[in-house]
Amino acid sequence: MRCIAIAAVTIDGKIALDAGHFSDWTSPEDKEFLHKMLDESDVVVVGNNTYKTAIEPLSKRNCIVFTASVRTSEHKSDILTYCNPASSDCIPLMEKYKKVAVLGGTQTYTYFLENDLLDELYLTIEPLVFGRGLNLFESEKNIEAHFRLESTKRLNGKGSLLLHYVRS
Amino acid sequence: MRCIAIAAVTIDGKIALDAGHFSDWTSPEDKEFLHKMLDESDVVVVGNNTYKTAIEPLSKRNCIVFTASVRTSEHKSDILTYCNPASSDCIPLMEKYKKVAVLGGTQTYTYFLENDLLDELYLTIEPLVFGRGLNLFESEKNIEAHFRLESTKRLNGKGSLLLHYVRS
Repeated sequence: MRCIAIAAVTIDGKIALDAGHFSDWTSPEDKEFLHKMLDESDVVVVGNNTYKTAIEPLSKRNCIVFTASVRTSEHKSDILTYCNPASSDCIPLMEKYKKVAVLGGTQTYTYFLENDLLDELYLTIEPLVFGRGLNLFESEKNIEAHFRLESTKRLNGKGSLLLHYVRS
Repeated sequence: MRCIAIAAVTIDGKIALDAGHFSDWTSPEDKEFLHKMLDESDVVVVGNNTYKTAIEPLSKRNCIVFTASVRTSEHKSDILTYCNPASSDCIPLMEKYKKVAVLGGTQTYTYFLENDLLDELYLTIEPLVFGRGLNLFESEKNIEAHFRLESTKRLNGKGSLLLHYVRS
């Protein structure tokens, strides 16, 4: 299993203004990259809020949705599983797959960080500032995770920038 | 007057773990860049916490320190002025200079953002994650400030990355 977080952030590191505010502010070039990455992944892991804001592009893919709405885990369909990471171990559900794409939001990214499961991170920095909003991670643990910058790619004229980090 | 914010952040957009935690986690290459930028600036604007953690490199430069410890503003020496942005207008103090380097922390960066004074931003992204800590900005206003990515520069082998944004 290889867990790859994919996120778009503002210059000031925000993934959204608030829950429900998804990806209307990200560039077409970032959306194109995201879809290519999803096509190459074996399963997508998302939190329930993120799933609801992106249900259309995710509905045909293998998905594990992190949610407090189930007690442990529930298979909703052949491709859709709900899992409650607060009360059950979701890792065995993911270990069936080779390439796991982690799409957020904050709590889901933080789960992978805190459980030392983040092998790679693709970060698109869109060239704007919100000044407030949701952080990529929101941990209360003492974490200092080191990465190596693998590559950078400018996606368009205004300077949306795609960074690829690998855990070091 | 041209205001240029200079900041080092983690991958997750944190400028420090907490107040008092200055720059022991930033790369030598970023510190070298910072000193070059300060040499090219006419005045440095910092908050009082940041000033205290960096008093040695700042003590010989023109400085405006944002602080609540004075009622309006006070000239402490030929090169050092204290100003309280909550109760007085600090902008005329800065307008005497051509190139203003803004060194943070959060409240000071946010003052420049909220007053639409951020002309440029140099951001060094160090390749590590704290998971928590102080944000670059902490505004309660509705802000969406757009920038153009002017240049990127990889500073070292592990991938500390210097980004230069200009307000668009």
